[in-house]
Amino acid sequence: MRQSKLFTKTRRSAPKDEISKSAQYLIRAGFIHKQMAGVYTLLPLGLMTMKKIEQVIREEMNKIGGVELSLTALQDPEVWKKTDRWDDDKVDNWFKTKLKNGTQLGLGFTHEEPLTEIMTNHIHSYKDLPIYAYQFQTKFRNELRAKSGILRGREFLMKDLYSFSKNQKEHDEFYKKAQEAYKNIFHRLGIGDRTYMTFASGGVFSQFSHEFQTLTETGEDTIFVDEKKKIAVNKEVCTDEILAELGLSRKNLKEVRAIEVGNIFNLGTRFSEPLSLVFDDEKGEKHPVIMGSYGIGLGRVMGTLAEVLSDEKGLVWPAEASPFAVHLINVSPEEEAAVKTAEDFYENLVANGLSVLYDDRKMAVGEKLADADLIGIKTQIIVGAKSIQSGEFEIRDRQTGSIKKMSEADILKGKFAKA
Amino acid sequence: MRQSKLFTKTRRSAPKDEISKSAQYLIRAGFIHKQMAGVYTLLPLGLMTMKKIEQVIREEMNKIGGVELSLTALQDPEVWKKTDRWDDDKVDNWFKTKLKNGTQLGLGFTHEEPLTEIMTNHIHSYKDLPIYAYQFQTKFRNELRAKSGILRGREFLMKDLYSFSKNQKEHDEFYKKAQEAYKNIFHRLGIGDRTYMTFASGGVFSQFSHEFQTLTETGEDTIFVDEKKKIAVNKEVCTDEILAELGLSRKNLKEVRAIEVGNIFNLGTRFSEPLSLVFDDEKGEKHPVIMGSYGIGLGRVMGTLAEVLSDEKGLVWPAEASPFAVHLINVSPEEEAAVKTAEDFYENLVANGLSVLYDDRKMAVGEKLADADLIGIKTQIIVGAKSIQSGEFEIRDRQTGSIKKMSEADILKGKFAKA
Repeated sequence: MRQSKLFTKTRRSAPKDEISKSAQYLIRAGFIHKQMAGVYTLLPLGLMTMKKIEQVIREEMNKIGGVELSLTALQDPEVWKKTDRWDDDKVDNWFKTKLKNGTQLGLGFTHEEPLTEIMTNHIHSYKDLPIYAYQFQTKFRNELRAKSGILRGREFLMKDLYSFSKNQKEHDEFYKKAQEAYKNIFHRLGIGDRTYMTFASGGVFSQFSHEFQTLTETGEDTIFVDEKKKIAVNKEVCTDEILAELGLSRKNLKEVRAIEVGNIFNLGTRFSEPLSLVFDDEKGEKHPVIMGSYGIGLGRVMGTLAEVLSDEKGLVWPAEASPFAVHLINVSPEEEAAVKTAEDFYENLVANGLSVLYDDRKMAVGEKLADADLIGIKTQIIVGAKSIQSGEFEIRDRQTGSIKKMSEADILKGKFAKA
Repeated sequence: MRQSKLFTKTRRSAPKDEISKSAQYLIRAGFIHKQMAGVYTLLPLGLMTMKKIEQVIREEMNKIGGVELSLTALQDPEVWKKTDRWDDDKVDNWFKTKLKNGTQLGLGFTHEEPLTEIMTNHIHSYKDLPIYAYQFQTKFRNELRAKSGILRGREFLMKDLYSFSKNQKEHDEFYKKAQEAYKNIFHRLGIGDRTYMTFASGGVFSQFSHEFQTLTETGEDTIFVDEKKKIAVNKEVCTDEILAELGLSRKNLKEVRAIEVGNIFNLGTRFSEPLSLVFDDEKGEKHPVIMGSYGIGLGRVMGTLAEVLSDEKGLVWPAEASPFAVHLINVSPEEEAAVKTAEDFYENLVANGLSVLYDDRKMAVGEKLADADLIGIKTQIIVGAKSIQSGEFEIRDRQTGSIKKMSEADILKGKFAKA
């Protein structure tokens, strides 16, 4: 798209009440707008980035057999009473509201209950299992404090997958596949090297749950990592007994700060029993379904990328989360030849299937380049009087800072992305 | 996708409390699940259909210069107080909730206020205008009654575009473009012939607003159509004076029932004045921005398609809203040769970029065909022992019922879609 049509403008400074670096950059670059603490509008660049992140997650969920659906925010109390999660004394972050007739409703902070109930319509026999259902859906959590920008939201988009299995073996196999899928996701999003699968306490149905924690000094969590083994444990489970069990030694552990970007839980029959989600096995005997849940907060992932990959000039997006593939910048917008070349180049890039932000604005070169660095699109291509003379265009990689020159023909073949 | 992996099953009957035909079919075919009156989960087939509808609307909004963003559900009262739309006596369908600290919040039933306020950060000069911003976002409306399935929801996905213009001429030009875009949308979705642009009352800033009304006997609205001129008026404005003004004659008008699938409003300075959204003109004089709003409820569109295009066998999707392009049905699932042919055919169709629901289930032929007719995918391709012998496959158009035969090679070339 033409940058002249992008209504957001970059800002020199962020609101003072924003503490986190990620929120500051995302606001200054025009990705998000703060409605209130923990509640952010996605401006065009932010929405595009979220959609890129969403697509990476969707592809990995589909690969392991996920089927997408979309549940509702408004929640009927009845089903939550059956699992004892309606009472504010039991769950302290409900947003509640009322119908005109006075009936109380909740806004879903998670969706185990309604999905388990839906599945009672579809699961009857062992032949119906396993089922892996997921959604990208807005969660509402009434957090007492929300001061970490989009890292801890009161309203946020989440990918939540729920697995329904007929026995522990089938469940365990999928749980492992989900672990690998999560590793793939964070690898593709450029934070695989600093994201640790972290053992956390598991509750009634299993010894452990697993968090995916991305190392950063500004993280809310403290974890203990074994860098060689690429494993971590969180505070709760960092006991001598458990370390021995996991084959970890306290002297190889480093205490670090991290952000939790994903988590997976063994739910056992915690929800299927009270909600009567049962199936008949081969012998006609009834059993409750074994469940798991697998979450990733998309706003938190976007915030984490902004927090850990950015530099002193601004945001730095990995290729798979970059709002556009290419930022085409005309640095001679007052010269007719440069405008013509840039316009043609833009049309050709788009015709070749590339997503392009085209800076067609009449503005000082320094400001344009500073804006481009703040926005952080992976690849910058510079068009100006010089490049027209030489027939080669400067290509800058926002992350490495490397610069190379290439002809338009080679660029259109996509060679810049490979080299 | 393989139908064996689609966890939803078709149902012989719909819940008794569903009155509308659209909700009955959508529930029986596994597109939606009722959480409570006016609140529906989108099951996989429903979500796919919604995404197809969304994409048609997105393309038409982008064509007229729309830029996409995503606002929040949670609303701070302050901005709504400035426009006098916070009080329950003024707006009777708010859902309200509270933060932990007792602060009251609302759930957005529309988004003029927050977007107008955001734009005060981005609009300063006439050079910043016009701006056309839109979103696909969940609205919450506390309807007293909600008994029309997904035709009138308490929680529903809406496309809402807001236009920001520097003068009436610029506004009027866009308003006309939006009218044409809406006609394109309903035409592409297969209801163009029975959807009328309908004059409705306009409020303080203009004589008229415009509704897009799709004719159907089960509609909630009554309108008066001039079939020759392809224009309609609603009850409010069906006066002798206005009819004369519009060049309509009462004797050519037919009273009919219809569903409102979209609407567009001239907002004038109703929101920009109280929220101080002003710009400097060429002379440095300040003026309030002139606004318009342009809505389409996606659930209502899906429900309308289900209501007006379905037949006695079930749903009938137009090509651009069909959850899959092709329903590939193996009618000899017990025969090895047929299974092999169908599997290969499925892989080839997908490799050629077609979206395919592949009925690989071992089940009686009659049931499979009845399921396919109920689900209503545009094109059915039948694979069985007969087709393997002849080398030609039966292609059925769900809407017209026409049947033709074609070789796999021709089908893979996409010829079935053209013929």
